Amino acid sequence: MNTFGQTFRVTTFGESHGPAIGAVIDGCPAGIEIVPEEIQAELDLRKPGQSELTTTRKEPDRVEILSGVFEGRTLGTPIALIIFNRDMRPYDYSKLKDLYRPGHADFTYQMKYGRRDYRGGGRSSGRETAARVAAGAVARKLLAEKGIHVVSFARMIGGVWLDDSEPEISDIVSAKAVDAKQLAGLRAGIYGSKVRCSHPKTAKAMEEAVKQAGEEQDSVGGIVEVRAYGVPAGLGDPVFGKIDARIAQAVLSLGAVKGIEFGEGFRLAEMRGSQANDLFTNESEGDVLPETNRAGGMAGGISTGLPIVCRAAVKPTASIGKVQNTVDAEGRPTELTIEGRHDPCIVIRLVPVVEHMVNLVLIDLYLAQQAQRGWM
Amino acid sequence: MNTFGQTFRVTTFGESHGPAIGAVIDGCPAGIEIVPEEIQAELDLRKPGQSELTTTRKEPDRVEILSGVFEGRTLGTPIALIIFNRDMRPYDYSKLKDLYRPGHADFTYQMKYGRRDYRGGGRSSGRETAARVAAGAVARKLLAEKGIHVVSFARMIGGVWLDDSEPEISDIVSAKAVDAKQLAGLRAGIYGSKVRCSHPKTAKAMEEAVKQAGEEQDSVGGIVEVRAYGVPAGLGDPVFGKIDARIAQAVLSLGAVKGIEFGEGFRLAEMRGSQANDLFTNESEGDVLPETNRAGGMAGGISTGLPIVCRAAVKPTASIGKVQNTVDAEGRPTELTIEGRHDPCIVIRLVPVVEHMVNLVLIDLYLAQQAQRGWM
Amino acid sequence: MNTFGQTFRVTTFGESHGPAIGAVIDGCPAGIEIVPEEIQAELDLRKPGQSELTTTRKEPDRVEILSGVFEGRTLGTPIALIIFNRDMRPYDYSKLKDLYRPGHADFTYQMKYGRRDYRGGGRSSGRETAARVAAGAVARKLLAEKGIHVVSFARMIGGVWLDDSEPEISDIVSAKAVDAKQLAGLRAGIYGSKVRCSHPKTAKAMEEAVKQAGEEQDSVGGIVEVRAYGVPAGLGDPVFGKIDARIAQAVLSLGAVKGIEFGEGFRLAEMRGSQANDLFTNESEGDVLPETNRAGGMAGGISTGLPIVCRAAVKPTASIGKVQNTVDAEGRPTELTIEGRHDPCIVIRLVPVVEHMVNLVLIDLYLAQQAQRGWM
Amino acid sequence: MNTFGQTFRVTTFGESHGPAIGAVIDGCPAGIEIVPEEIQAELDLRKPGQSELTTTRKEPDRVEILSGVFEGRTLGTPIALIIFNRDMRPYDYSKLKDLYRPGHADFTYQMKYGRRDYRGGGRSSGRETAARVAAGAVARKLLAEKGIHVVSFARMIGGVWLDDSEPEISDIVSAKAVDAKQLAGLRAGIYGSKVRCSHPKTAKAMEEAVKQAGEEQDSVGGIVEVRAYGVPAGLGDPVFGKIDARIAQAVLSLGAVKGIEFGEGFRLAEMRGSQANDLFTNESEGDVLPETNRAGGMAGGISTGLPIVCRAAVKPTASIGKVQNTVDAEGRPTELTIEGRHDPCIVIRLVPVVEHMVNLVLIDLYLAQQAQRGWM
Repeated sequence: MNTFGQTFRVTTFGESHGPAIGAVIDGCPAGIEIVPEEIQAELDLRKPGQSELTTTRKEPDRVEILSGVFEGRTLGTPIALIIFNRDMRPYDYSKLKDLYRPGHADFTYQMKYGRRDYRGGGRSSGRETAARVAAGAVARKLLAEKGIHVVSFARMIGGVWLDDSEPEISDIVSAKAVDAKQLAGLRAGIYGSKVRCSHPKTAKAMEEAVKQAGEEQDSVGGIVEVRAYGVPAGLGDPVFGKIDARIAQAVLSLGAVKGIEFGEGFRLAEMRGSQANDLFTNESEGDVLPETNRAGGMAGGISTGLPIVCRAAVKPTASIGKVQNTVDAEGRPTELTIEGRHDPCIVIRLVPVVEHMVNLVLIDLYLAQQAQRGWM
Repeated sequence: MNTFGQTFRVTTFGESHGPAIGAVIDGCPAGIEIVPEEIQAELDLRKPGQSELTTTRKEPDRVEILSGVFEGRTLGTPIALIIFNRDMRPYDYSKLKDLYRPGHADFTYQMKYGRRDYRGGGRSSGRETAARVAAGAVARKLLAEKGIHVVSFARMIGGVWLDDSEPEISDIVSAKAVDAKQLAGLRAGIYGSKVRCSHPKTAKAMEEAVKQAGEEQDSVGGIVEVRAYGVPAGLGDPVFGKIDARIAQAVLSLGAVKGIEFGEGFRLAEMRGSQANDLFTNESEGDVLPETNRAGGMAGGISTGLPIVCRAAVKPTASIGKVQNTVDAEGRPTELTIEGRHDPCIVIRLVPVVEHMVNLVLIDLYLAQQAQRGWM
Repeated sequence: MNTFGQTFRVTTFGESHGPAIGAVIDGCPAGIEIVPEEIQAELDLRKPGQSELTTTRKEPDRVEILSGVFEGRTLGTPIALIIFNRDMRPYDYSKLKDLYRPGHADFTYQMKYGRRDYRGGGRSSGRETAARVAAGAVARKLLAEKGIHVVSFARMIGGVWLDDSEPEISDIVSAKAVDAKQLAGLRAGIYGSKVRCSHPKTAKAMEEAVKQAGEEQDSVGGIVEVRAYGVPAGLGDPVFGKIDARIAQAVLSLGAVKGIEFGEGFRLAEMRGSQANDLFTNESEGDVLPETNRAGGMAGGISTGLPIVCRAAVKPTASIGKVQNTVDAEGRPTELTIEGRHDPCIVIRLVPVVEHMVNLVLIDLYLAQQAQRGWM
Repeated sequence: MNTFGQTFRVTTFGESHGPAIGAVIDGCPAGIEIVPEEIQAELDLRKPGQSELTTTRKEPDRVEILSGVFEGRTLGTPIALIIFNRDMRPYDYSKLKDLYRPGHADFTYQMKYGRRDYRGGGRSSGRETAARVAAGAVARKLLAEKGIHVVSFARMIGGVWLDDSEPEISDIVSAKAVDAKQLAGLRAGIYGSKVRCSHPKTAKAMEEAVKQAGEEQDSVGGIVEVRAYGVPAGLGDPVFGKIDARIAQAVLSLGAVKGIEFGEGFRLAEMRGSQANDLFTNESEGDVLPETNRAGGMAGGISTGLPIVCRAAVKPTASIGKVQNTVDAEGRPTELTIEGRHDPCIVIRLVPVVEHMVNLVLIDLYLAQQAQRGWM
């Protein structure tokens, strides 16, 4: 199942070392301005080699629009976005042909399909997420015109946590809404940091943790937090398309993500009802809203109007420099040493990807909601 | 979106205080024996009033099969399962008409649909999950014939955690596979406990926590753990239908669930790659398998053959006896006191529901996988 | 696949001689007034036993609304509609257990599923369409509020054709639009006729043809024509959800329909381009519209604003009184005599069913179109 | 909706004069050998400029495989097929910007989307079907390995009908099954003819009709017939995914098709039941089969094992050399003269397209059926 969404449907394709990866968006409304450079800018936030903390693999990730856009605006027809896999490093992948790398999907792809593209993970490579980012960039444009803005950042990396009380983060966590300009500011702070954390002191400690792991031929994981502002009350499609259910599917469809929580999440499980409930209050303009946001911007799987808040647990990068014991396809014990310099912290590059997965969910739910209006 | 699944599609319907709730299963293979009593037995595990720890609302939840089964076996046509909402207590719900109960979906349903069935939550009531259980009971039968067995239990309630080292649980957590008989034993232990925990001492402490909260007119949350044994390597449908992504959607589509994690989950985020990777080994019969199961039975979103392991965070019941401040539909402050005795711990009744949501995911992925065989 | 539609999704269930048949509508907008009597009225137009020309089987077809409607209006949640199979005639179906009735689906159901409900066709019975009519009645309400009105009638029965030049039909075929009152008039003329043809002389000849066939223990087929007025330009979802493609699937999903054509249909295949093209003209209010409607209200699969016109070929009823040669499940030759009085002309009862299938397509496309508005 | 199929899902994209058109196949089983030249060969059967009877537009239609195939076999991952729109003729399309060409979708696209790619039809161009052929070529490979072979041919062109009694066609119409070699022979006869008719005398008359129309700056339509051999009994997915319903949607999603019929089709509507029913008989090996095939290889929407037979009515090409009256976007009357030499008979190029649409339906139903086996 390589299609995501019901109304705004994104189909991705491509293996990491095949000719190209790409995405086809079906169901994008007509008339929205699409500037290729804006899609490219989102891809650039994900691309490797931006600092010494990520992999040095060269992925220029140059996106091309093959269809669906004419004279600068969407036609309402499918938008095909393609990224050719240029600049492949000459590398002998044949040694991976009969080996199952620990923590990777080599083994399970072989079990499922009876064969696999063993060059760098093939379809299971994180490279596939570049296509999602390209599609998410289109979703982002649509949402922005409706005042919906999503931002994500590293909440924890390598055991170093960002504390809500820090001034650089308090804007993000206390805001009930942000406009396009404020969003740009938040993003500038986050993406100005090598580790996608806008609090300099915390960022520095995270960087240290990543470097330390890298030097030890090891890797670290972390937690990505997402906040979606401006989501109008009423998005979400019970009972199976609840807003959290949809976001959970979207974010857990990223290979390295092993858990997700909304609002206070797992902490809610240890609370009493009297502590967990968000009580309602009367906002200044007479609008009813929950006073607190422990539930992360939703109730019964439908948005309340407060920011959607979720956190995704990212496991440490599976590819490490250390020698690992494994077996080959026949079950013979062998040692695996992955050559070259590897990405010691995949969290950094996943920050924008998670953000765009939430964009894809929100635009899909937004369009679904639009379909239902008109008889109330 | 009230349909779940691609191949084994379950559509549920019904409001808590309407004439009936139910489910229609489309895509169930023909020829499987369906005994109504077996569906009923699963429903009985979810029904309220089984002990003093749950709500005393009378829900006989008598399931009827309206179609799709003939001479005791499935026809391959849609299976309609219906549960009439009998024995409605006379109760004046009109006072809830203009009130938004904290922690409930009254407010968001009103925002989304412009109206709502205000009698006991309507569609957003947990009662809806009975229809899922009925459908899950059919899925369970199909899976059992293929050697796939799912079990769930309370891992934590009211802050009381079940420890893996306890003998009653070690069977569950260390088993790589169970057969139907062993499963029956595990379930007997779990459902023999009022709190769905097979370790008597822990169960007793959990019970105390629930009772204490109930006496204080409050409620507790907890964590439900699921283990799926016998899942063959190869289930899961990358890139968006990964096994964890699908389970996450399924489980988070339950209103009270606020988070989910797979394998070591959030703990993985703080590990190094060298600690997190599951190394491969050669099983006795020459089969390759991961040696450890930190990833919870999957890699790249496809099952490895080891047990699928996940945990869902359940928030405390929103309905509590304590007086709560809220506002009415016009924003006027008011106090809410929910009358009658309420369920101090929804976790107990969610244990079988979560189990069945996993059943629904697994049968759907199993059938999808079957479709793809034949040209390898 | 027992679900139809993407946005307005109808799932039907039920065997002809099981406990009940029904439909679940998911994706119906909230706020529309639903009066059970209106659904019942549509069902009554399909029910058998309305005249001596149709089967005398007693099907009271009493519809009940189980969910999704509260205080007389839709909630936005699934609407479950159920019709219990009451008043089953005592009948010994066991003789059909090992027989394949010619023209029926007994054989193919057996081949597909390995078993079947042999009592009166089970799921393959035309009775299943009653559930579609119930759902279509809801679609009809939604469409009517947007000025979209669908009407159908018998264009041919038993070789007797309705001629466009006849005054009673010329209103229907020449109208570019009708309002609710005019529609009521058209329907009154059509459903006031035993054969669903508003032209008395033609209707009389059709009746004669039906009676003649019935007396000879045989049956006749015919052609149902549908016209949808008030469909705004722009409905249809290229490239695979073209308005004609969707209607074709909908109408050919009726077991007795063996062909469909749009506008001039098969006659277009013998025309020259210069004869077939609809030229554009300037309507009185300055609106551009095709001057002629040979294409049946569409171009490129999208509605033009002119009436949608299509015709469905209905084969003669398969159940006839005459003795027919067949074989049993083991291939042994045998004779089949179907007892009781049978429906000599299924076309009559299919007229409203085809109408409602078009309603279901149009509301689905209407909602899909609504989802896409807002960025133009 | 640019995706077709439930299990074998094909998504097409591209405008006729944009950078590229293409298809993404999701759900193709792993392990099937894919030779690019085989896909190319199917495309070549559709490409223009093969004889003086079709358009001379240069469309080299060179297909490239971007993903999903590795070491010559499918991986089970999405197969992206792309055809770049090379060799665009310099042409001033700006004059079409404000004009609605009669018989084309310019007007309806403008109404639906508020804008359109006016260069040569954009998304509504028949060029889009090249992407379907590429996908159909993959489906064809899968089906061939299961003994399912689809063939199509021109049954009528420009009023010239192919008669069943002609020896060159009698093989096709009388065969109950064909093997791969026989199929190759049938196709050689059909595609060896400029008009896709294997009967030389009829083909000659069809050619004359096309030439005549072309010389008169006009165009002709026709009827494409499809026969699918080797379809096992049991394919088709009641009640809405009946085999005829699915094929009808597939074939009517081609812009020029205005009608479809199965088996005896519209002729059945004028028959008596005693004439229309296919009686069952006992085949040589003891297998039960219908003796005749008036229903076109199906009953109740499920295949019987006899050949699937259907016919599609194709309207004459809308683009003609003759001057036509139309109006511009503001409703001002104007004359349209389409420059250059145009395709006087689109039927010729649609013959392989229709064939591949049936391939797409059959593989989808085949895989769906496979999913359901295993508990009978």
